[in-house]
Amino acid sequence: MAKPEKKLSDAEKLKKLKRKLKKLKEAAESSASAVETRVEAAARALAQTVRKPVPAKKEKAVSPLAPAGFPELSVVEGVEFASGAAGVKYQGRTDVMLVRLARGTAIAGAFTRSSTRAASILDCQAKLALKQDVAQGAAIIVNSGNANAFTGRNGQEAVDKVTGSVASILSIPRDRVFSSSTGVIGEPLPADRITAVIGQLVTDLNAGGAAEAARAIMTTDTFPKGASASFEGDGGKINIVGIAKGSGMIAPDMATMLVYMFTDAKIAPALLQRLLKAQLAGTFNAITVDSDTSTSDALILAATGKSPAAEITDMRSAPARAFVKALGKVMLDLAQQVVKDGEGATKFVEVRVTGAASPADAHKVAMAIANSPLVKTAIAGEDANWGRVVMAVGKSGAEADRDLLTIRFGDMVLAEKGWRAPGYDEEKASAYMKRDNLVIGVDLGLGRSKRTVWTCDLTHGYIDINADYRS
Amino acid sequence: MAKPEKKLSDAEKLKKLKRKLKKLKEAAESSASAVETRVEAAARALAQTVRKPVPAKKEKAVSPLAPAGFPELSVVEGVEFASGAAGVKYQGRTDVMLVRLARGTAIAGAFTRSSTRAASILDCQAKLALKQDVAQGAAIIVNSGNANAFTGRNGQEAVDKVTGSVASILSIPRDRVFSSSTGVIGEPLPADRITAVIGQLVTDLNAGGAAEAARAIMTTDTFPKGASASFEGDGGKINIVGIAKGSGMIAPDMATMLVYMFTDAKIAPALLQRLLKAQLAGTFNAITVDSDTSTSDALILAATGKSPAAEITDMRSAPARAFVKALGKVMLDLAQQVVKDGEGATKFVEVRVTGAASPADAHKVAMAIANSPLVKTAIAGEDANWGRVVMAVGKSGAEADRDLLTIRFGDMVLAEKGWRAPGYDEEKASAYMKRDNLVIGVDLGLGRSKRTVWTCDLTHGYIDINADYRS
Repeated sequence: MAKPEKKLSDAEKLKKLKRKLKKLKEAAESSASAVETRVEAAARALAQTVRKPVPAKKEKAVSPLAPAGFPELSVVEGVEFASGAAGVKYQGRTDVMLVRLARGTAIAGAFTRSSTRAASILDCQAKLALKQDVAQGAAIIVNSGNANAFTGRNGQEAVDKVTGSVASILSIPRDRVFSSSTGVIGEPLPADRITAVIGQLVTDLNAGGAAEAARAIMTTDTFPKGASASFEGDGGKINIVGIAKGSGMIAPDMATMLVYMFTDAKIAPALLQRLLKAQLAGTFNAITVDSDTSTSDALILAATGKSPAAEITDMRSAPARAFVKALGKVMLDLAQQVVKDGEGATKFVEVRVTGAASPADAHKVAMAIANSPLVKTAIAGEDANWGRVVMAVGKSGAEADRDLLTIRFGDMVLAEKGWRAPGYDEEKASAYMKRDNLVIGVDLGLGRSKRTVWTCDLTHGYIDINADYRS
Repeated sequence: MAKPEKKLSDAEKLKKLKRKLKKLKEAAESSASAVETRVEAAARALAQTVRKPVPAKKEKAVSPLAPAGFPELSVVEGVEFASGAAGVKYQGRTDVMLVRLARGTAIAGAFTRSSTRAASILDCQAKLALKQDVAQGAAIIVNSGNANAFTGRNGQEAVDKVTGSVASILSIPRDRVFSSSTGVIGEPLPADRITAVIGQLVTDLNAGGAAEAARAIMTTDTFPKGASASFEGDGGKINIVGIAKGSGMIAPDMATMLVYMFTDAKIAPALLQRLLKAQLAGTFNAITVDSDTSTSDALILAATGKSPAAEITDMRSAPARAFVKALGKVMLDLAQQVVKDGEGATKFVEVRVTGAASPADAHKVAMAIANSPLVKTAIAGEDANWGRVVMAVGKSGAEADRDLLTIRFGDMVLAEKGWRAPGYDEEKASAYMKRDNLVIGVDLGLGRSKRTVWTCDLTHGYIDINADYRS
């Protein structure tokens, strides 16, 4: 009763043992497969913690700071867009945009001050220095994939070929065709590939093609950039739209910024240029991603004059002020989008300097902070390291008095009167740094000048993009 | 004959099967242990490919550019060193160095120009502005772990406490005691911890303690830095030795540079200062790691006058020229060691600019290249991206003509006359970039001014150190 097994014959025992053996084999197999599964899972988990060397070009991740989508842009009468794939460098995507501007369009521009600027920049500057015959209409042709920079005499020849071809097909003078090129530098621009698609581009011109055009001029950008504004002019609505590319994310040879803006306002070229200039300092000249200035930065503003509103003729008039305000809004929006697509950016940072002895000093301090690798890496690390802000103020070359300095992150005062603020709360400061959008405030306590600039953090992504790339 | 097993009894079969089972169990165990071993090995291999977030503080890796070891320094008569562990911030290592300088020692110094400089810097500058009573002897006290920067009035009080304590124990005037502090900023310096060990330090003073002292002043450095030179003066040998810390690698709040140099030459303070200044521009002011200037950079040169050589009294004399040459050699050696220990550095880069229109322009171009994040990331990526050098020249603000520019990497001409050089060989250029020591040459083709500066690359290591740190 106690040990019934004893009654089993050897044969039965054998049978039982064989079953046991079979189960054991199965168990071993399933255990092996379980081990395998667990090893695989562990490998996957490990692989996820491993920082990726460079995201593959095809699957570039959109910046975490990107807007929800491309905005709805109003149609600006007198402006038509087309984009196409010329295969300048990239395959399987568009890389050329053409813009036709109606007769009566005035053009203004702003360009990089680099002494090694690209051929297309020199060409635009030379053309804009001429007296504009606005009655002729105008065009803008832009390619991505090749910057046509530092390409010697061949650079200008390529520009002539491309702009000449557009001029001839659209029957406008060549000095009314403006071009930009963005991408790799020092490589000859394959102008023939571009001229080969111009006929088709002209056929495709349409008023609603801005979003596609914004996409065609992208290089390493992770999202296309657009913005618009409108206001009631004197006798009708005036629209302003703009598209931009810049500070792309993957595999750039140079962080290049290109901006094209269009308005139906009627404004003569000289005034248009002055109105544009009024907004440059506070927008595109107030951003920095990595302190490296491109050979190819270009901004072109075209005013078609097709709005029913009366012509804007006086800088100090109410319509001019309304125009400048709306223009500034579009420019700031585009400029901030460029920063938000800064290489490797994970944080958008506003640097507000107040109380400086002079505007030049305010700018120096703001840019010293916005360009400091130590400040930018601290932000990437979500470290409320205000000591590095003190360092940046100190190295800026601007007048500063340690004991008058106040440093704020958001609304928190971190340091004042030459030392850590009495109410400084490290935990609160650290919590603040976890945000995507940060404000660093510095009051110098010396005067009334101020300056706000925008930048992003300096991350492993920046190194990935710029160190690990070039085929 | 064919099947002898058939003859086995069930009992025998059972026995056999049991043996088989036992073997199977053993095999399973040994296989499990083999799997375990292999998983461990795989995990180790994976761990090696995983980029380390931040090397643990205790096992900081020595820079790949570090010299083979700390050099043999000659003994400079009249100089004694001691180091100790005050526990200012670090545990289990030395963090204070004391140097006693014999009666008759003249002192010269050079300091950061930051407008937010640390209390000890302001104190040194004030003391060096006084007429030096060299007959009194002097001392230098330095702590690591806390920079005593941006610490308001408390900063000067801490300096007074520390230097006062040294002065009183050594029986020398307080204005002959110079101090430096390096480490975290904005934290009050625990002066009491330092004064508590001064008595012991004085007991430990010895002529051979330079290497230990170089170690005590390290913060995030990965190796201690020393250099020496000697020459035959007028009537005897003159020795110069120096130690430095700077551009440490792990967890810095600020890349700070401290340099202490000692000579047995007999030179009055005013002349010593002039001789020092003669070599600053070409050495410590010709290096950059990340363009961020410290609040605490300090260089102190002490001349004990103990050499049998005659006093150096004339800037233009042969001994003065020999002294300046030897001094420059030690300074350049130390400066280059600081770059070689640059945060995250894997490449040591010499930037040679020639043909500039003015010395100021040559400096601007050299520093624009040496500080450009895009140039430095390209070097990290071993990419012969001369286009970024063109960009840096263009943004520098110096006079430049695209078509006169020549760019060399080592002996190779990469670009000239506004374009890629005809003999440009991408493969050869890429092979060159694999070296640890690189030379980037830029000839502007405009004038006769030149400037050479030294820098390092910008790597993931820099981001690790500066983004991932702060406790």
